[in-house]
Amino acid sequence: MKFNKIAIIGVGLIGGSIGLAVKKKRLAKEIVGVCRHRKSLRQAKRIKAIDRGALSCKEAIKEADLVILATPISQIIKIAREIAPYLKKGCLVTDTGSTKSEIVGEIEKVFSEDIAFVGAHPLAGSEKRGVSEARANLFKDTLCILTQTRKTKLAAFKKINTFWQVIGCHVIKLTPQRHDQIVAVISHLPHLAAAQLVKVGRKNLNFAASGFRDTTRIASSDAEVWSDICLTNKEFIIQAIDQYITRLKLMQKLIYQEDKQRLSVEFRTAKTLRDGLQK
Amino acid sequence: MKFNKIAIIGVGLIGGSIGLAVKKKRLAKEIVGVCRHRKSLRQAKRIKAIDRGALSCKEAIKEADLVILATPISQIIKIAREIAPYLKKGCLVTDTGSTKSEIVGEIEKVFSEDIAFVGAHPLAGSEKRGVSEARANLFKDTLCILTQTRKTKLAAFKKINTFWQVIGCHVIKLTPQRHDQIVAVISHLPHLAAAQLVKVGRKNLNFAASGFRDTTRIASSDAEVWSDICLTNKEFIIQAIDQYITRLKLMQKLIYQEDKQRLSVEFRTAKTLRDGLQK
Repeated sequence: MKFNKIAIIGVGLIGGSIGLAVKKKRLAKEIVGVCRHRKSLRQAKRIKAIDRGALSCKEAIKEADLVILATPISQIIKIAREIAPYLKKGCLVTDTGSTKSEIVGEIEKVFSEDIAFVGAHPLAGSEKRGVSEARANLFKDTLCILTQTRKTKLAAFKKINTFWQVIGCHVIKLTPQRHDQIVAVISHLPHLAAAQLVKVGRKNLNFAASGFRDTTRIASSDAEVWSDICLTNKEFIIQAIDQYITRLKLMQKLIYQEDKQRLSVEFRTAKTLRDGLQK
Repeated sequence: MKFNKIAIIGVGLIGGSIGLAVKKKRLAKEIVGVCRHRKSLRQAKRIKAIDRGALSCKEAIKEADLVILATPISQIIKIAREIAPYLKKGCLVTDTGSTKSEIVGEIEKVFSEDIAFVGAHPLAGSEKRGVSEARANLFKDTLCILTQTRKTKLAAFKKINTFWQVIGCHVIKLTPQRHDQIVAVISHLPHLAAAQLVKVGRKNLNFAASGFRDTTRIASSDAEVWSDICLTNKEFIIQAIDQYITRLKLMQKLIYQEDKQRLSVEFRTAKTLRDGLQK
């Protein structure tokens, strides 16, 4: 697997790390990065995440055989629309958005038949951001969900699948809807939960110990990114919050009733499930 | 500050770490440990957290000038009642329970005038437990809340204050009620929240990335310990869950209304607060 030219639109933590991983695995003759911030482009070039920077998407994607949309969600669809007429025939396109139904649905409408898009969501990253945090092994042993729809072309899917695998991911295939439903409970709800724990505890943060710190670490993530995620996965997130509130109310009831036995069972099953996540 | 004999009732992570810290700071001529499990006592002796083990509290506290109750909450009051008649006149007693109103209230009723009790809650520890996890620096730079009531004797308070400081804690003085109110939001609610996130996500735990892992780490804590905490801090925890649910419902509403601006503000203020916790 070797590309002549890879264009990475959005050179932040994720885009930058993709560039570094591509370099390390020698997957491309040339990587062109696009970013609104010249400083990020300079830094990306300095750390060799890209070969050269471009300020316009149109210029960057010219003759590219793989385009990676690694901007915040709200930009991805906008940029896809912008570049659609200029993509090379047979070009592969993938993205890194944390929600998939809206992105995949819109992009499949916008791209012509001879462009192959496969949505991706690498479950990597952290509350940090920016190309300064990028590293070649960010994707090592992380999960990457690829979306498959009726419009997905098998040959393109295989290539994009291989691409994500080569840079370190374990790939899982899901429909965009199923993806959004799963990440609503396993990623989006925990983020909202952490942010609101901070708000509830705001007057007593000087008493926070390591438990509170760990539980709320992800509340330090970028606010705009998370607003976008919420707005592009509305229904599943609202559903997940409902489930969560129902469970919290059950705990409240058991505490009120002083039902020690059922409380213990609740904590024990949670512990068993969580212990199962340990390596 | 030097004690002739310190008795540690309950030689687990906390009790064992106190023993190790006391040894390191040479605060006692002799440390006697009590535990129901002979294996833990043997291990505590082997790692030099105690000088000798005793299977009965009555024997261990004989002639002790400092007694530390480091068992699970449900045992603390029971043991205090059991040892009350046998404590040396002028003996200092402290504990390590995570809730304080019930413990302090009960113990102050049980102990006679010539025994000085000062409740303590060292905000140290982890989801791990057992003397095998004990370490001398567990309390280094952690907070320890000491309780003060109308019955607290100033001289005894000063000594117990110094004791916790010498083993590494920053000490803060609160009433038992104020303590319980604060830890309800900063420790107990986060624990319940983490446990219920695991339950909501239980069918999709194979998709859990580092964010989920951090947010739910404390769900691996001991189930009995947490049932006890819930039942000895009922009202403040029920109140904290109410506040939390109100905030989660607000987020739900903002998502439903697609109010991007207010969503961003929510995430941004949470981020600012959480960033403030970073060292």
